[in-house]
Amino acid sequence: MNIAVIGLGLIGGSMALELKQKGFCNYVIGVDNNKEHSESALELKIIDETCSIEEAIKKSELIILSTPVNVSSKIILSILNNIENQILMDVGSTKNELIEKIKSHPKRKNFVATHPIAGTEFSGPSAAHLGLFKNKVTIICDQKDSSSIALDRIKEIYDVLEMKIIFMTAKDHDVHSAYVSHISHISSFSLALSVMDKEKDEKNILNMAGSGFESTVRLAKSNKEMWTPIFNENKKNILEVLDNYIGKLNAFRDAINNNNESALNSLIQEANGIKKILK
Amino acid sequence: MNIAVIGLGLIGGSMALELKQKGFCNYVIGVDNNKEHSESALELKIIDETCSIEEAIKKSELIILSTPVNVSSKIILSILNNIENQILMDVGSTKNELIEKIKSHPKRKNFVATHPIAGTEFSGPSAAHLGLFKNKVTIICDQKDSSSIALDRIKEIYDVLEMKIIFMTAKDHDVHSAYVSHISHISSFSLALSVMDKEKDEKNILNMAGSGFESTVRLAKSNKEMWTPIFNENKKNILEVLDNYIGKLNAFRDAINNNNESALNSLIQEANGIKKILK
Repeated sequence: MNIAVIGLGLIGGSMALELKQKGFCNYVIGVDNNKEHSESALELKIIDETCSIEEAIKKSELIILSTPVNVSSKIILSILNNIENQILMDVGSTKNELIEKIKSHPKRKNFVATHPIAGTEFSGPSAAHLGLFKNKVTIICDQKDSSSIALDRIKEIYDVLEMKIIFMTAKDHDVHSAYVSHISHISSFSLALSVMDKEKDEKNILNMAGSGFESTVRLAKSNKEMWTPIFNENKKNILEVLDNYIGKLNAFRDAINNNNESALNSLIQEANGIKKILK
Repeated sequence: MNIAVIGLGLIGGSMALELKQKGFCNYVIGVDNNKEHSESALELKIIDETCSIEEAIKKSELIILSTPVNVSSKIILSILNNIENQILMDVGSTKNELIEKIKSHPKRKNFVATHPIAGTEFSGPSAAHLGLFKNKVTIICDQKDSSSIALDRIKEIYDVLEMKIIFMTAKDHDVHSAYVSHISHISSFSLALSVMDKEKDEKNILNMAGSGFESTVRLAKSNKEMWTPIFNENKKNILEVLDNYIGKLNAFRDAINNNNESALNSLIQEANGIKKILK
């Protein structure tokens, strides 16, 4: 089977590598606006050829849309306009805006909305690697709006990638993502900014940064091309969690400012509840 | 040599294990208010015996004070009152308040203020382990106020633990710690609180938490016994960085609220600067 991968980043590139290695497909056509990415993906043997989107769609049975979420929203209608029997899936971190855009499209049933929860703070085809998805979770959204043929095919992909599939509405997905993923990124970006504001002498950070700081700030290495569109597309949910988060920080601020030990103890003890949820 | 370790937690316990294994000392006397901790440290062979502080001081040549910072501040004067030629070091995460307390004590020179930057989100003697300190950084504060004999001995300890030593005033230490360590903990605690507020159904967190969330929230497992006193002792510096941090979060909030892509891009790109500093 031929597949097309539109967007040759960490996720699209890693999927291409893994699906070919595992024999799900034998030929991968890659499309990326960024010439360097296309060339790098060819060199790294992530893809077998590169061409225009239209050509890639014609030559493939299955298309993986793995561009930043704003690009996906922009091009998904024209992709659907060009497909006949092909199956289209996306892998974006926000779902509702994309799905709203195509809800009355005659080819809606050929599309499956998915979000494999895998990734690192690195990006581009050079970050792609085998094993990225193994034993992680992927979400399929609004599955009733996809045909059973399309759905079965996409489930097969995620089985090949050794991911656990869970099902959710696109709306619920976007709410949970804001709480469990998007806010972590804003928190890390802001932490990096604060520390760099103060620590003009980088040596202090290097010398004093224990592993605690490193893990908390790791996501601040993530790129704007991916994250600015996510923050815009999931605006409503993100503002809700951001306000809640700033509220918690202010609770810490007040407790510290008032030397209120019992309030601090309560806040920390309550936060420790996360131990029961994550190992 | 006999050493006394007052406070048998992760840091004190790990030091005892490592210093004995490497032959720096051959007998460790442990002191801890918490009976379970003392017994567990005996069972785990972290210490050879347990007794009162006064006795432990008498029997030892060197004393490691590794209690939570508020306890250290409370008991340091009485320890100094009891020592003759013994050397005392602490390992706390805040330094200025402790040092202020003893600045005119006749035995001030027997004391060396240190902060090994090592640790995990776990606590107690059962968390103690060999190798915790290797290749990490320790800070010695206000070294001119310690005698050269005491200082040389403590440097020897950190050499044995294979740590890199850097020197700083206690005041500078506390400012940098607020920025590089303490704020990371407040950020993590608050993130855990926000997510748990929303995600009443814990399965959603478990299912959707990618490794990004896990690393950002890891420090939220840290215990109140250690952190409430740190937040209180380093209040002024922590409030400064907390206000700066909340300011950055509000910058993200405004940019998202106004769909201001260029502002979001700038914030993220600036935050990416952390890549140059941390690997």
